[in-house]
Amino acid sequence: MSVGPHQTAEVEKYLRALQERICVALAAEEGKAAFTRDEWQREAGGGGVTRILADGAVFERAGVGFSTVQGDALPPAASKQRPELAGRKWKALGVSLVIHPRNPYVPTVHMNLRFFVAQHNEDAVWWFGGGFDLTPYYGFEGDARHWHATAKDAAGEAYPFFKKWCDEYFYLPHRKEPRGIGGLFFDDWTLGGFPTAFTLVKSIGDHFLPAYLPIVQARKDTAYGEREREFQLLRRGRYVEVNLVHDRGTLFGLQSGGRTESILMSMPPLVSWRYDWQPEPGSKEAELYEKFLVPRDWIA
Amino acid sequence: MSVGPHQTAEVEKYLRALQERICVALAAEEGKAAFTRDEWQREAGGGGVTRILADGAVFERAGVGFSTVQGDALPPAASKQRPELAGRKWKALGVSLVIHPRNPYVPTVHMNLRFFVAQHNEDAVWWFGGGFDLTPYYGFEGDARHWHATAKDAAGEAYPFFKKWCDEYFYLPHRKEPRGIGGLFFDDWTLGGFPTAFTLVKSIGDHFLPAYLPIVQARKDTAYGEREREFQLLRRGRYVEVNLVHDRGTLFGLQSGGRTESILMSMPPLVSWRYDWQPEPGSKEAELYEKFLVPRDWIA
Repeated sequence: MSVGPHQTAEVEKYLRALQERICVALAAEEGKAAFTRDEWQREAGGGGVTRILADGAVFERAGVGFSTVQGDALPPAASKQRPELAGRKWKALGVSLVIHPRNPYVPTVHMNLRFFVAQHNEDAVWWFGGGFDLTPYYGFEGDARHWHATAKDAAGEAYPFFKKWCDEYFYLPHRKEPRGIGGLFFDDWTLGGFPTAFTLVKSIGDHFLPAYLPIVQARKDTAYGEREREFQLLRRGRYVEVNLVHDRGTLFGLQSGGRTESILMSMPPLVSWRYDWQPEPGSKEAELYEKFLVPRDWIA
Repeated sequence: MSVGPHQTAEVEKYLRALQERICVALAAEEGKAAFTRDEWQREAGGGGVTRILADGAVFERAGVGFSTVQGDALPPAASKQRPELAGRKWKALGVSLVIHPRNPYVPTVHMNLRFFVAQHNEDAVWWFGGGFDLTPYYGFEGDARHWHATAKDAAGEAYPFFKKWCDEYFYLPHRKEPRGIGGLFFDDWTLGGFPTAFTLVKSIGDHFLPAYLPIVQARKDTAYGEREREFQLLRRGRYVEVNLVHDRGTLFGLQSGGRTESILMSMPPLVSWRYDWQPEPGSKEAELYEKFLVPRDWIA
C-alpha cells in the first residue's frame, strides 16, 4: 500500500485527537490548574499546538505538544542513514508530552509518537517512531508491573523488542544508570506496512492514559516532606541531563532551528544538583537505585 | 624553546597554587561555609582535586577544580583538527571554576585555564586555552566596565580578540542570546612561544580575583525578594543549557568517560524552567536583556 496525503492526514487526525484526549483526562485528574493553549506557526513550514498546565495541585507542570514540520528539501544531516532522501519534500508530525507531578511519589512520565514521510520517486518513504517511559522517584513494584503490563497490552508481540530498545535509549552513560524503569521505544518503524504499523502506534497512544493515570491516582495523596522533595529535585537533574546531553530529538530540534520553547517544555519547573550526592545505604532512595534503576523483566 | 616535563610541571605548579589562592580568597569573602577537598585518581591516568563550598551565606555553591588527564595514545576524536597527534602520549591539566552566588544581584562567574601537551617526534605540541566570563542576573554598568577593564589589564593587546572569541563561544543559538556579558576566551593558544603564552595565562589567572571580588563585595548585601530569586533560577536554566547543549569541554568530558561529578560541579544548586517566560517591558529584568545581553564594547 502506498502512503500519500490521505494517510498523513489520518495520522494527523489521530494525533491531534490524542493530544486533546490526554489533556482532558489530565485536567480532570488535576482539579486546580487548567491547560493553556498556544498555537504557533513555523516560518519554514509547519506549526503546532503547545498545551501547558503549570503550577497545578497534582501536576507541577504538564506539557503536551502537537507539531508538524515540513520542508521542500530534506537536509542531508536529517537523513544520514537514508542518503537517497536528501533533497526530497518531507513532513514530520508528532505528539510529545512530559508530565512533572508535584508529589515525589508520583512518577514523571514521557510519551512521544511521531510520523515521518518523504517523497521518493512516485512513492513515499515513511516511518513511525516514539514510545512511552516512566521515571519514578520512589519505587513501587506493583506500579512498575502495571506500567509494563499495560505497555505489553499496547505493543503486543513487539513489547520485548520495544522494551529493550527503551532501556538502551534512555540510559545515561556518564551516570551509568537508566533514566527510569523504561517502557516502550521504537524508531524507523514500518513493519507490516502502513495499516499494521499505524494500528500499533494507535494502540500505544490509546494505552498511555490507562498505563499512567492509575499510578497518579494511587500515589498523588501520599504524604511527603522536604526529604522526598529534595530527592525529586535531584533526580529531575538526571532528567535534564538525558534531554540536553543525549536525546537526539531535543538536540536535533535545538540545532535545526526548531521552536525552543516547545522543545524545552519538557524541562522540569524546578531542579537541583549537588556535588557527589549518594543515597544513604538502606534508605528508600537507595532502593530506587538498587531495585528499580536496573535492567529488569517486570512481567515475567 | 622546546616544551618538556619541566614546563608542564611549572604550569601544574602555577595552576595548583592558583586553585588554592582562589579558594582562600572566596572562603574569606564567604564567612559561613568552608571548602571541602576531594582528591581523586582516574584509572586511565591523572586525577584531581575538587573543592566545593556548598550552602554558604554569600555563595550558594562554588566549585573550584584542578585536574590532570593523560594517556598513552591520544584518541583520534580528540585531535580532529590535528590528525598528526593521534596515537601520541598526551597530558592535559587545568583549573576550572564556577561560582553560583546566593544573592541574585551578584553575578555567576566562570573561569578555566588549561594546558595541553602531546609528544610529537622529539618535540612536543602544546597549547593553552581558557578564559573567564561573567553572567549577571541584574545589570550594573559600572560592574560591567570594571569586569572588562580588568580583563583588558589581564590580557593586554590580546583583549579585543579574546573578548570577541568569548562573545562568540558563550552564545546560545537556540535562544539567540549570549550567556552573560562575556570576558575572555581563547583556545589552541601558542602565540609568542611557551614563555610568552604562559605569562599571558598567568596574568589572566592572577586577574580573576581582582575582577570578580569587588563586584561580590558591592552587591552581596543588596536586599532582594522572591521576584529576584525566581529570575535568578530561570536564568540559571540558561546556564545549564549552555553547559549541557553547547560547551565542548563538558560534552567531551562526559562522552570520554571523565569524572562526571567533577565535570558537573558547575551545575547550579537550584534551577527552574518556565514555558515561554518573558520579562515585563520596562522592568529591570527586561533591562538585562536589552542593555547587557547584547554585543557591547564595555571599555570604549
